[in-house]
Amino acid sequence: MAYTYLSHLYCPRCENRYSANELYNLCSCGSPLLVAYHLEKAKKEWHYEQLHKRLPSLWRYHEMLPVTDPENVISFGEGMTPLIDMRAIGDHYDISYLQMKDEGLVPTGSFKARGAAVGVSKAKELGVEAIAMPTNGNAGAAWSLYASRAGIDAHIVMPKSAPPITHKECQIGGARVYIVDGLISDAGRMVAKAAHKYGWFDASTLKEPYRIEGKKTMGYEIAEQLNWQLPDAIVYPTGGGVGLIGIYKSLQELRGLGWIEEDQAFPRLVAVQAENCAPIVKAYDEGNKESEFWPDSETVAFGINVPKALGDFLVLEAIEQTNGCAVAISDDEILKEQERVADLEGAFICPEGAATLSAVQQLREEKWLARDDHVICLNTGLGLKYPETVETPHTVLAPDYEI
Amino acid sequence: MAYTYLSHLYCPRCENRYSANELYNLCSCGSPLLVAYHLEKAKKEWHYEQLHKRLPSLWRYHEMLPVTDPENVISFGEGMTPLIDMRAIGDHYDISYLQMKDEGLVPTGSFKARGAAVGVSKAKELGVEAIAMPTNGNAGAAWSLYASRAGIDAHIVMPKSAPPITHKECQIGGARVYIVDGLISDAGRMVAKAAHKYGWFDASTLKEPYRIEGKKTMGYEIAEQLNWQLPDAIVYPTGGGVGLIGIYKSLQELRGLGWIEEDQAFPRLVAVQAENCAPIVKAYDEGNKESEFWPDSETVAFGINVPKALGDFLVLEAIEQTNGCAVAISDDEILKEQERVADLEGAFICPEGAATLSAVQQLREEKWLARDDHVICLNTGLGLKYPETVETPHTVLAPDYEI
Repeated sequence: MAYTYLSHLYCPRCENRYSANELYNLCSCGSPLLVAYHLEKAKKEWHYEQLHKRLPSLWRYHEMLPVTDPENVISFGEGMTPLIDMRAIGDHYDISYLQMKDEGLVPTGSFKARGAAVGVSKAKELGVEAIAMPTNGNAGAAWSLYASRAGIDAHIVMPKSAPPITHKECQIGGARVYIVDGLISDAGRMVAKAAHKYGWFDASTLKEPYRIEGKKTMGYEIAEQLNWQLPDAIVYPTGGGVGLIGIYKSLQELRGLGWIEEDQAFPRLVAVQAENCAPIVKAYDEGNKESEFWPDSETVAFGINVPKALGDFLVLEAIEQTNGCAVAISDDEILKEQERVADLEGAFICPEGAATLSAVQQLREEKWLARDDHVICLNTGLGLKYPETVETPHTVLAPDYEI
Repeated sequence: MAYTYLSHLYCPRCENRYSANELYNLCSCGSPLLVAYHLEKAKKEWHYEQLHKRLPSLWRYHEMLPVTDPENVISFGEGMTPLIDMRAIGDHYDISYLQMKDEGLVPTGSFKARGAAVGVSKAKELGVEAIAMPTNGNAGAAWSLYASRAGIDAHIVMPKSAPPITHKECQIGGARVYIVDGLISDAGRMVAKAAHKYGWFDASTLKEPYRIEGKKTMGYEIAEQLNWQLPDAIVYPTGGGVGLIGIYKSLQELRGLGWIEEDQAFPRLVAVQAENCAPIVKAYDEGNKESEFWPDSETVAFGINVPKALGDFLVLEAIEQTNGCAVAISDDEILKEQERVADLEGAFICPEGAATLSAVQQLREEKWLARDDHVICLNTGLGLKYPETVETPHTVLAPDYEI
């Protein structure tokens, strides 16, 4: 049996095909490229019963991942994150079966590790010696550390407003870090130029085809954790949208593999954005197939501060095809929700994750979600990475103080 | 089949027995209490083949955990952390098979979550409504968040020098946090008094018998991950020593269950401390059965700044019984090692974890470890929780800067 059923790359917009054995960024038409597998063959040869004895990492699905030689796998044991019951919040919002998939429990403390694991492994396989990327923080941290493990040089450009803690992760990973007095879009321009000038591989979001393969494993895991049943809705914080595109891709593959029933409805996919950076929500509301650049975007949920995503049309398609929707949440509500989740459930989640739980409340109030829907929210990272969201009092007691 | 084979509590010093259905702190002789199980019965009824289909969390070993009703289990999916190959560092130190068990990948980002998960679950089962504990940071953070999930009040006393990020975790978990201008010993005194005054359960390290049960699961997992073979040495950062005591206890239980062969040698257990807080190392060097209070202790590895551990005699016994040893590492070397691990392996680990890898280098140089020993180091937490250990440059580039 093959280690992977990898077939080729294809353009979801113009249907051009490319070899998966050579290095590509975008399609010549400007669209991101996606990875295709020999699904029919895999369906005959590979069954989920074979997963039981495998390690609880995303590499358990290596047949549907793009790495051809296991020697190229760069891993810190990422994946198979827990699905946690959220009974107290569920009761609070009148949802009988609410769960949170906790992506805080991966290396570097954010779901970006999934994309980095697969993206860096494939870059190594294709002979990449140096990568460059712009980042709002977490992706840069993840790619720096995985690149370090792979022996690949990393050049990371981040806005000065990116969380200091992610800067430190890049730094200790040995990346060359450039801090720019500007936005992620300025960082992106610097990267594109430098990549061209020095021959570095531009690993910007969706400019390389493989990180999405890492992120789609969230979908495989949810299905496996639910014993190949699917929830009614999956609620996802959406910046670049790679996670949502990936989960939608995983559902299509799972159907192709016959691991979920042909007539099993896909979960409705919900994209959650911040009120002050909601291009996907706007496009969804207006019935458009692409989003427009969102000027002067700003939000405490730094990871979803993406004014215009390269894969916006894929996100909107995933929402449409699953009868999903898109919702915007205010920063105020996000921070309140973060506290509520810690208070009621004991989980210290990131603002992006908190936004999804707020969205659940809103969608339940609007009756878009029913009481007995099985809803899964994605917490995409550790609250720990955003220590400034929690205020602590400063009273210091004398050592002989009596409580 | 029973959910647990829990039998009773016993004192490892005076052999007194106590019921496991009532709340106890220490033995009347002042020693910590340990948990006993019906091993003979479990050996007949429970086999590791039954583990395959269970979730990858520490609760997969619930037969050897103290909770009797699964409804009382408070879990965020903690446990079954990855064993990561450290080939580059191994090559560097001339060890052919070096692995790191990464306890950064648990809720709250430190191995303290294991103790909190089991300790809080059992506290809930025994009807505890409020706990109090002194902490250097990570334990308080873990217990606060698990207590919040259990609906138990938490009173946490920490020295003002504890990492601010752990203070924030306690805070958002809804604990009442008291910051004291003193040491962990001052915090401990405040807790003991207040617990007595208000009827709170004193959950100080080893003053409650159950956190050790959570931590012993590291030993179960290592054995399962190695397919019930054992490594030659396990290297552990040692403050209170609960992890090491727990791993030793797990080895004895695994032998009792017949899951490891009767004649299979236990791994040599190595306790690693910081040079400026090395009471166990001193006792080991001098051949003593207990340690002495270490005055003016100070180390960057905050989690192992414990001048006198209540369970020191159990740590020293575990070392002696396994032909292990105890090693002290300087703060300078710890910080250099932390950088080296990120540089060579891409892992951003905590200073305590870095100390164990330094210890491997030292023990290999001294030929205490052989080239072909299979050595497992424990990284007890995320490097992320110690952002101040990484310095970052502050040059900010203009948005039109050309790299």
